[in-house]
Amino acid sequence: MATSSLNIVILAAGKGTRMYSRLPKVLHEIGGISMLERVIHTAQSLNPDSISVVIGHGKELVRQRIQANVHWVEQDQQLGTGHAVKMALPNLADSGRTLILYGDVPLIDQQTLADLLSIAGEDVALLTDVLDNPTGYGRIIRQQGNVVAIVEEKDASAAEKAICETNTGIFVLPNRKLAQWLNALQNHNAQQEYYLTDVIALAQHDKIPVHPLQVRASWLAAGVNNKLQLAQLERILQQQQANALLQAGVTLRDPARFDLRGQLKHGQDVIIDVNVVLEGNIELGDNVSIGANCVIKNATIGAGTVIQPNSHLDNCVIGSNAQIGPFARLRPQAQIGDAVHIGNFVEVKNSTIGYGSKANHLTYLGDATIGEQTNIGAGTITCNYDGVNKYRTVIGNQVRIGSGNMLVAPITIGDRATTGAGSTLSRNCPPDKLTLARSRQTTLNEWQRPEKKPQE
Amino acid sequence: MATSSLNIVILAAGKGTRMYSRLPKVLHEIGGISMLERVIHTAQSLNPDSISVVIGHGKELVRQRIQANVHWVEQDQQLGTGHAVKMALPNLADSGRTLILYGDVPLIDQQTLADLLSIAGEDVALLTDVLDNPTGYGRIIRQQGNVVAIVEEKDASAAEKAICETNTGIFVLPNRKLAQWLNALQNHNAQQEYYLTDVIALAQHDKIPVHPLQVRASWLAAGVNNKLQLAQLERILQQQQANALLQAGVTLRDPARFDLRGQLKHGQDVIIDVNVVLEGNIELGDNVSIGANCVIKNATIGAGTVIQPNSHLDNCVIGSNAQIGPFARLRPQAQIGDAVHIGNFVEVKNSTIGYGSKANHLTYLGDATIGEQTNIGAGTITCNYDGVNKYRTVIGNQVRIGSGNMLVAPITIGDRATTGAGSTLSRNCPPDKLTLARSRQTTLNEWQRPEKKPQE
Amino acid sequence: MATSSLNIVILAAGKGTRMYSRLPKVLHEIGGISMLERVIHTAQSLNPDSISVVIGHGKELVRQRIQANVHWVEQDQQLGTGHAVKMALPNLADSGRTLILYGDVPLIDQQTLADLLSIAGEDVALLTDVLDNPTGYGRIIRQQGNVVAIVEEKDASAAEKAICETNTGIFVLPNRKLAQWLNALQNHNAQQEYYLTDVIALAQHDKIPVHPLQVRASWLAAGVNNKLQLAQLERILQQQQANALLQAGVTLRDPARFDLRGQLKHGQDVIIDVNVVLEGNIELGDNVSIGANCVIKNATIGAGTVIQPNSHLDNCVIGSNAQIGPFARLRPQAQIGDAVHIGNFVEVKNSTIGYGSKANHLTYLGDATIGEQTNIGAGTITCNYDGVNKYRTVIGNQVRIGSGNMLVAPITIGDRATTGAGSTLSRNCPPDKLTLARSRQTTLNEWQRPEKKPQE
Repeated sequence: MATSSLNIVILAAGKGTRMYSRLPKVLHEIGGISMLERVIHTAQSLNPDSISVVIGHGKELVRQRIQANVHWVEQDQQLGTGHAVKMALPNLADSGRTLILYGDVPLIDQQTLADLLSIAGEDVALLTDVLDNPTGYGRIIRQQGNVVAIVEEKDASAAEKAICETNTGIFVLPNRKLAQWLNALQNHNAQQEYYLTDVIALAQHDKIPVHPLQVRASWLAAGVNNKLQLAQLERILQQQQANALLQAGVTLRDPARFDLRGQLKHGQDVIIDVNVVLEGNIELGDNVSIGANCVIKNATIGAGTVIQPNSHLDNCVIGSNAQIGPFARLRPQAQIGDAVHIGNFVEVKNSTIGYGSKANHLTYLGDATIGEQTNIGAGTITCNYDGVNKYRTVIGNQVRIGSGNMLVAPITIGDRATTGAGSTLSRNCPPDKLTLARSRQTTLNEWQRPEKKPQE
Repeated sequence: MATSSLNIVILAAGKGTRMYSRLPKVLHEIGGISMLERVIHTAQSLNPDSISVVIGHGKELVRQRIQANVHWVEQDQQLGTGHAVKMALPNLADSGRTLILYGDVPLIDQQTLADLLSIAGEDVALLTDVLDNPTGYGRIIRQQGNVVAIVEEKDASAAEKAICETNTGIFVLPNRKLAQWLNALQNHNAQQEYYLTDVIALAQHDKIPVHPLQVRASWLAAGVNNKLQLAQLERILQQQQANALLQAGVTLRDPARFDLRGQLKHGQDVIIDVNVVLEGNIELGDNVSIGANCVIKNATIGAGTVIQPNSHLDNCVIGSNAQIGPFARLRPQAQIGDAVHIGNFVEVKNSTIGYGSKANHLTYLGDATIGEQTNIGAGTITCNYDGVNKYRTVIGNQVRIGSGNMLVAPITIGDRATTGAGSTLSRNCPPDKLTLARSRQTTLNEWQRPEKKPQE
Repeated sequence: MATSSLNIVILAAGKGTRMYSRLPKVLHEIGGISMLERVIHTAQSLNPDSISVVIGHGKELVRQRIQANVHWVEQDQQLGTGHAVKMALPNLADSGRTLILYGDVPLIDQQTLADLLSIAGEDVALLTDVLDNPTGYGRIIRQQGNVVAIVEEKDASAAEKAICETNTGIFVLPNRKLAQWLNALQNHNAQQEYYLTDVIALAQHDKIPVHPLQVRASWLAAGVNNKLQLAQLERILQQQQANALLQAGVTLRDPARFDLRGQLKHGQDVIIDVNVVLEGNIELGDNVSIGANCVIKNATIGAGTVIQPNSHLDNCVIGSNAQIGPFARLRPQAQIGDAVHIGNFVEVKNSTIGYGSKANHLTYLGDATIGEQTNIGAGTITCNYDGVNKYRTVIGNQVRIGSGNMLVAPITIGDRATTGAGSTLSRNCPPDKLTLARSRQTTLNEWQRPEKKPQE
């Protein structure tokens, strides 16, 4: 079969009343991106000639949030799915096919749609499901095995309601007939809406064959009308992603307690413990180990690095064989070198830390450049902010910063310098020397310390 | 049907041997409150004329722990359920009905009980279940469709054991007959106990109709005899609560990883990430977002506030559009104003923080009053405790506290004051000025730092 | 039946291609120990006369990692299971029985194997399963009810493929016949391998009865070929462990969010909240409570101690009635006394803390010995490391260390000493006195603080 032109129309105008949200329904997220973006990405994977997205409720916000090369089609009155597709007619070719998708059916996949297009030819194809409890869904009416109509729940007879074969709403329609059919739709039904589903009966009338394809799993075509359904599809997506990672060799200690809201590239022998959340773009090298309860967003982590439990990483790059956490916080622009140790209750922001350096305890490193094999004592703070401006702290190689140092930026600490514990340093420290600022230790012999009074 | 008087008897005297606990069984918690309190709350929702709670094992502890307006009835010998109800007879009216509940059947709900009372009229009603495996449960004996008796597992014939319709133990009994029936009970059975279930046969004898009602889900009438069952009902309760919140529009990233042990009031567009535990009374305004792994107890959080992952909040009030965490700890009497930022490794206790102020890193604020738009430097500590007494730190508006400050309370820092990094301040700091306490920075040229000896 | 000698052969030579791992398959862990170790432990529980482990892929690493008193048998060419067992022949007795196990069938238990040995007598026994979908498994061929052969999937006819009774691969074989049968095996099959399963047909030929035993749950005999299966068995093991602990009286708030990777000894009324990970050897006394999201490895925790959420404990000992966390980190050799409080953002390493002492906030205690009823102020750090050597800090009883102290080790603080806030102390502090090191507080009247420029 020769390739014919393909247009895609995504219906995304509904309000989603039962979401109880100010956000338009299709902007709610699954797996870290909005449902509509997910459908647009899947649509794009089919290399269509055009994608039209029909929007209505919250249309300004939808257009603002979603940066995609699509035709935005406004449907200001919600007069039914048939009416919605009709709004997109100006974007559709005269020949070829149009695929109808939904912004609130987020998990439809490329394979299913490719199969549907394949069986459609130049006719009609519809994606069906078979449900134990079909209540609420449009039923597929067959005669001699052929699909001849779809009846909506509200318009169905008792006999029709007993049918378990249902309409998912996903169609392939021939462009040569589409305008004619859409213009022929009537709203003489329970909801007084123009149903897209009525095109099936029109196709039957025009003797255009209708090819049904049963979806291989109901969740692929499941729609979201409330937060319960949103949560259910979120968990199905997460389970699918987890299974794919397991099959590819990633060790997940509990696939049911793993969230990936973005993309994960991984090496060999990656181990991810329970309850980890990964967001955005994540790259994990060979032998990376992520401890329990870590939340990691947009991070690149080198081979052999261990992230201990309860760490929080956001927009950072970590080298190989580093040790991070537990209770570490890496903030944007943290660039952590190979073999670096970042320990507990340590925060790093907009700082570069060189090979083999260590900041193991209770430290804040902000706007700092730290050399190699330098040790930052416990309780050290880069005082980078004067209330208005931020300044840089530069620390050389093989430096030993004492505990509890306040490094008042801008300041430079030379290579192999040592600083004394408890020093507040506001001027540069020369290399190789010990620099400190310390008060004399005194014991007060006369002082009486407060004591609890004995109970009377 | 005219409303007749309603008495409720809750049986709560059992030891719960298989709980392997020093705590009386009915004090074990589900959803953050004891099973018995949960049943008492449900009983109270029916507006009864009286509630009697029959206690035995651990009765002193039960009475001490549960503050409720009920008649406490002591059953010192565990002679069976019939005997237990008999102990409560003095509290029951001469007419009307008595509803029998159980302190270890915690998830029975108001709807089921209202339905049971409704079908009871002035007769007998019993709540039944149908189980695939009824082993261990009393079986419902019917003749011509009418319930005529209940046979306990230990006394059942093989034919009776094959019956899958079981007794949940929850009855409505007519007070006009109850004393007579309880006095007529015999203990000629396998366990030599006075079974309350034998009243069914007595009702049959007295030609009082017995109206069965099948419970709509087994868990509503499920009892707890061990910690496995306790955990199972805990998860069912959590699932029910999560589903109700989802239906009401709360976004839960994973309903199976959400614990609510108390009451949640919420605005619109609240998002709760995975593995959050909420305890006590929680109020979340519109657009509040709670990150993964937070534990929050008795907190009010204003609209638009973001709680980042791994934060721990206990008895605190947070305003609108605040940013909390990650790794923040808010302790009792923390009052956090609008647009305040509390960052990582920061602890706040018994302190008020005004509009727009920030404490972003490694800080302890205890017994402090902080004004508006004030910045607290990293590593700052309010030294509020002299080993005996606690003192207050008062910080004004638009103050800039330097990093690593030790603020020795009682102390007042005036509006728009600035303090130098690394200062230990024990006297008040005037407004508008820079105050600091700092040692002179010195470099020791002769000092030799210790070095690792080369490997021989 | 008299006890006859028992040899066990564990097949562990496979590569595990679909694990996509550099680690040999049998070294992957379930429940915190490698699959092979788990099988060896189960084998040892049967008190066999010998255990032979046949290794091939990664044999050096397997031998190095697993310290067990077994015969290591090398199979350098992977010519099939029959060939693998043949390699172990030199370790097997002339009489008695040999039990065949697999290093990648990790959850087989002692009870099943004891039952299998019991039905084997001096004949052949094999463990079978019945699967809804037997695809991929060897099928059990019966004639007149007797097991006469096993046919591998790749060699099975269509009729044989319809058989749902499958071979688990776990056999008991009579030593008097084993060498003869193994030498008689042929590799005329689809995979050109010597199948151990062909011994069943040889037994049939020799009129040695074959006794089948159906495994009581499929997971007991399930093998691991990829990370998905590894994760599935991990969760089954965790569920089994959780159920056993619940039955023994441990309260688990969510059995599906509990990981035990080692051994747990527990007292009465232990409560473990959601998402806790326990590793290694853990002992929890009566009434110990573990908060959500804690990760605990090799720890002994005394009665009544509360570990608050998000704490991380590793190789430490904690006394009774202590309060730890939230956000506490106890590292190796932390010895925490009775009634001690370790609070948020506090790290303790290689330190002993005496009865009733407290370190509640933002503190690092390393290489310290702390007496009784001593209070460590917030932000205190033991400066134990000069970049080369570690030194000890010794603090007496009833000491009050002020906030933000840098204690430069080696240093001794006497009993009942007090230290001033913000002091860096490098010399010993006498008992009963106040010692401090502090700079004079100064206010600079002329200083102008930087201010944001008004927007133009």
